[in-house]
Amino acid sequence: MTETQFDPADGVAFIDGVYMPLAKASIPLTDRGFVRSDATYDVAHVWKGRFFRLDDHIERFQQSMKGLRMSLPYSAQEIADILIECVRRSGLRDAYVQMTCTRGVPPRGTRDPRLCQNRFYAFAQPFVWIANEEQRRDGLKMVISSVQRIQPEAVDPRIKNFHWLDLTGGIFEAYDRDAVVAVLIDRDGNITEGAGFNVFAVRDGVLATPDRGVFEGMTRRTVIELAGEAGIACEIRPVSADELRGADEIFITSTAGGIMPVTELDGRIYGNGRPGSITNRIHDLYWGRKEDGWLCTTVDYTETAA
Amino acid sequence: MTETQFDPADGVAFIDGVYMPLAKASIPLTDRGFVRSDATYDVAHVWKGRFFRLDDHIERFQQSMKGLRMSLPYSAQEIADILIECVRRSGLRDAYVQMTCTRGVPPRGTRDPRLCQNRFYAFAQPFVWIANEEQRRDGLKMVISSVQRIQPEAVDPRIKNFHWLDLTGGIFEAYDRDAVVAVLIDRDGNITEGAGFNVFAVRDGVLATPDRGVFEGMTRRTVIELAGEAGIACEIRPVSADELRGADEIFITSTAGGIMPVTELDGRIYGNGRPGSITNRIHDLYWGRKEDGWLCTTVDYTETAA
Repeated sequence: MTETQFDPADGVAFIDGVYMPLAKASIPLTDRGFVRSDATYDVAHVWKGRFFRLDDHIERFQQSMKGLRMSLPYSAQEIADILIECVRRSGLRDAYVQMTCTRGVPPRGTRDPRLCQNRFYAFAQPFVWIANEEQRRDGLKMVISSVQRIQPEAVDPRIKNFHWLDLTGGIFEAYDRDAVVAVLIDRDGNITEGAGFNVFAVRDGVLATPDRGVFEGMTRRTVIELAGEAGIACEIRPVSADELRGADEIFITSTAGGIMPVTELDGRIYGNGRPGSITNRIHDLYWGRKEDGWLCTTVDYTETAA
Repeated sequence: MTETQFDPADGVAFIDGVYMPLAKASIPLTDRGFVRSDATYDVAHVWKGRFFRLDDHIERFQQSMKGLRMSLPYSAQEIADILIECVRRSGLRDAYVQMTCTRGVPPRGTRDPRLCQNRFYAFAQPFVWIANEEQRRDGLKMVISSVQRIQPEAVDPRIKNFHWLDLTGGIFEAYDRDAVVAVLIDRDGNITEGAGFNVFAVRDGVLATPDRGVFEGMTRRTVIELAGEAGIACEIRPVSADELRGADEIFITSTAGGIMPVTELDGRIYGNGRPGSITNRIHDLYWGRKEDGWLCTTVDYTETAA
């Protein structure tokens, strides 16, 4: 089988110093990154040929590795160059770009994670949306899941990780209940996050988003910054399920889709089933600033291969 | 590179209908089994050419798949045949044998787990011991970790899964504190389990092991059964960290090592640093019954390839 059978627009990966079609990319069956989910990752995105906050994503990725006592032989600039090269080779103007560090394969006969050589896997693939165009325009149906989010005393959610069985349980529950997404609660009944997104409640013109038990997403961070610039108050604190239910507006944030309105929660309609005015304002600020090239890194698609 | 460069005794895997050297076995980078740890598995072992409780392991594996809404095109007997064939090809008389079901690779452009074709990965590799021979004879040093085990309301621990970042945190903490293994507690301060093992406390001749927040290991089940036969009382109920500290004897159970005495907990010595009499009795019962071929499936190494 030759590489020419693969369309780079389906995705390009980088493993062990080699760029390859994503469809051919794999991880050893015995890498602890798979068999112990002993891994951390980060996802950046490219929109209209430009990365958004690439350096911030890589800095966070390096912090996550440090938190798990992992390290790679690549500098932040080298990681950036690899990710850009994956995108350049794919030719994709809109892409989902993942960087992953796994613990690696233990030496024969041991189970000591300290003896593993950590491994780096990166890829660019077509942009993934959490919700389709109609849902993003008209608002998503969300449920508050009966599944709890893994507690921070067990796994630090600020270290982006693949422990998603709780979130996956939420996805199934959402579909079972005729919704698109689910938000998980913690043991105290506070809102946490959903599969790949953070949640914001809007009440009397003020934003609130959970401070604890969540991954501090890049779009969440961006919304907090944009709200500050626009003079919209934003509180980062516990948000109970009841408070969310009583909100005027609800929206979710994700690298895979930006700012997305929620217009139905547990079957209750919000804003007559239309995105609220604060949500729309944040949405337009986000996409407008991105159009202007804010915090962007432009991919040079004409560059020769690295 | 030809297969003849690989020694089958290093491990044999089965993927997509093909047997291959374990060192060549891999999982697609985009399988949700890796990037969302959306997978379940089970581990059986072979000792002196015989599987122990193979049917029970496969039955549990099938229950776990059902719990995650996964299914495979293999019957229990077909899974058994594949595992036996992995061992036969490896020639290993003592082996660690893993069966795994992953969600699979989502169709392009979707993130819906319901649309994935579930995948089966199996392998046999040399037997793995949690502790070395000296530790198993003289007893292990254990710590009660500061990390909590993932709560059952988030991820059902009875469905064997790869969500091990908490357990891996415990492994690091054990090494940091000059111990070999760590047991994790829950939010209420009760003992749960460690990385690949269950815990038993012995007090006044009575066994106690946690009833909740743990994977119900096959060796744990075997100990409960053997204790019943031997007239040793065994209570399955919450066990607090304080109760464990106050035990006369402590031991851990694992497919990767059987019954292993713990003679030091958080720096405190138990039984003058020697395995206790109840622990020894359970240990000898376990290995004796296995020697007798109890609940075993004999591997025919002379059989021709399937």
